[in-house]
Amino acid sequence: MSSERSIAIFSPGLLGGSLVKTILQRLPGVEVRVWARREEAVEEVRREFPSVIASSSIADSIRGVSLAVLCMPVQHMQDVARQMAACDLSDDLIVTDVGSVKGSVVAELEPVFDGTKACFIGSHPMAGSQRTGLAHARGDLFYQSACLVTPTEKTKREDHDRIRSFWIKLGCRVREMTPQKHDHCVARISHLPHAMAVLTTLAALSDDTSVLDNSAGGFRDTTRIAGGDPAMWAGIFLHNRDEVIAALQDASARMTELLEMLQSMDEEALRRFLTQAKALRDLLPAV
Amino acid sequence: MSSERSIAIFSPGLLGGSLVKTILQRLPGVEVRVWARREEAVEEVRREFPSVIASSSIADSIRGVSLAVLCMPVQHMQDVARQMAACDLSDDLIVTDVGSVKGSVVAELEPVFDGTKACFIGSHPMAGSQRTGLAHARGDLFYQSACLVTPTEKTKREDHDRIRSFWIKLGCRVREMTPQKHDHCVARISHLPHAMAVLTTLAALSDDTSVLDNSAGGFRDTTRIAGGDPAMWAGIFLHNRDEVIAALQDASARMTELLEMLQSMDEEALRRFLTQAKALRDLLPAV
Repeated sequence: MSSERSIAIFSPGLLGGSLVKTILQRLPGVEVRVWARREEAVEEVRREFPSVIASSSIADSIRGVSLAVLCMPVQHMQDVARQMAACDLSDDLIVTDVGSVKGSVVAELEPVFDGTKACFIGSHPMAGSQRTGLAHARGDLFYQSACLVTPTEKTKREDHDRIRSFWIKLGCRVREMTPQKHDHCVARISHLPHAMAVLTTLAALSDDTSVLDNSAGGFRDTTRIAGGDPAMWAGIFLHNRDEVIAALQDASARMTELLEMLQSMDEEALRRFLTQAKALRDLLPAV
Repeated sequence: MSSERSIAIFSPGLLGGSLVKTILQRLPGVEVRVWARREEAVEEVRREFPSVIASSSIADSIRGVSLAVLCMPVQHMQDVARQMAACDLSDDLIVTDVGSVKGSVVAELEPVFDGTKACFIGSHPMAGSQRTGLAHARGDLFYQSACLVTPTEKTKREDHDRIRSFWIKLGCRVREMTPQKHDHCVARISHLPHAMAVLTTLAALSDDTSVLDNSAGGFRDTTRIAGGDPAMWAGIFLHNRDEVIAALQDASARMTELLEMLQSMDEEALRRFLTQAKALRDLLPAV
């Protein structure tokens, strides 16, 4: 039994659509609403999920719900949240999100609900895919994922408990941290790998794509996430700019070290360098 | 029916062991021999493959065979090939290898067999794993892999045909190119991704490994190959040094571009950059 009576998902892309599927499976009896900006997307939701109340009206979608989840790219969240805050909101409304950046998102969205009955708490379920759109939504996308929740000193204990409970019911392992700690951590473990996959793809293929004929699993895995949505990732990189720059500068310093070892043919240093990377990578449990 | 009567695999690691399994499955009736440097490895081969003739003697392993495959790290191939060339060799012996570098390997190994009855032709089946050792050998490792074969102007047509036929029988798609073209291509599609996975791992985890608690599929895939054997990869990087340096310098130039876009907050340029990478990555068929 969920403590939420009605949940509204804002933007039914890969993450929003997967949330709808997961809620329908795991929280039976809870009303689910979906807001989409475009009428075509509203129609698609109605066809895909007949039991869901879909609308392009923010006011109709937010009225009476106890939980709203923002699932659009981070750069569009503030605009939707402002429109939401101007609507008639439930006394117990919590607004959260699924964005990959928390510092700037929490700083922008928390004050939007000051003076309303609602509050904002940032969430980031660490699940996704290079694929985008409702057509790729999966009911198991969040299962056993880490979900990072970033309360602030303004967050009430009971609201915090409700958000934690929501993600646990969806199958996530919830971890709590400050928005700043989140952005540092995720820059290293998600945004940096994304940028490196992009750089690898560009350096490998820009001059001559025919080398792809000879590719194997290493190239496929190392560059998979470079197929992600460019607009979404541009927003993430710019919203977490300082941490992404710092992580890329560390990678750039390592690149300089590696080039020096190759240029001086220092096999011993090169082995130590590769051994250090292997020891770190081997910390990750095999799947 | 194979045209090879007896095949010797030199060094039963992941690739050598996988070759033994594949030959036993796909070329029944062909004698298989395995040479290993260490007696413990010889014993392990005897336990794992009772039908195989295992020995630590290069002379005993090469005597009478029609095909020998060098499967040790590239930096050790020349030494073993020289010892081999001093043995009693069959009239029809072809020596090949499975190394990830071909320019320097072919330049070193082809002349070793001048004045003998044997010849060397370079091969590179594009299959592997971050795992190492006979324990991880798989009979399907080469199935549907690209195998790059690098004949030179000294290579006889009939020898070339036999090598091609051997790899096709093991399930590979054979492609032919010069050793130089091979090294350029593989630097981009394999050695660069390996180096980038190493740099990503070091930049992500060196300061604080606890960020790993929040990792997801993106980090796992992007860095998987950084778990590969450091000694083997140090040899590959140094044997293909010029091409690896050129590929890393291209990646470094892209890194500089990306950092400039982030520093100037140029969202349009950043989107174009990510869109270009996505378009290139999307050329690779989904699996």
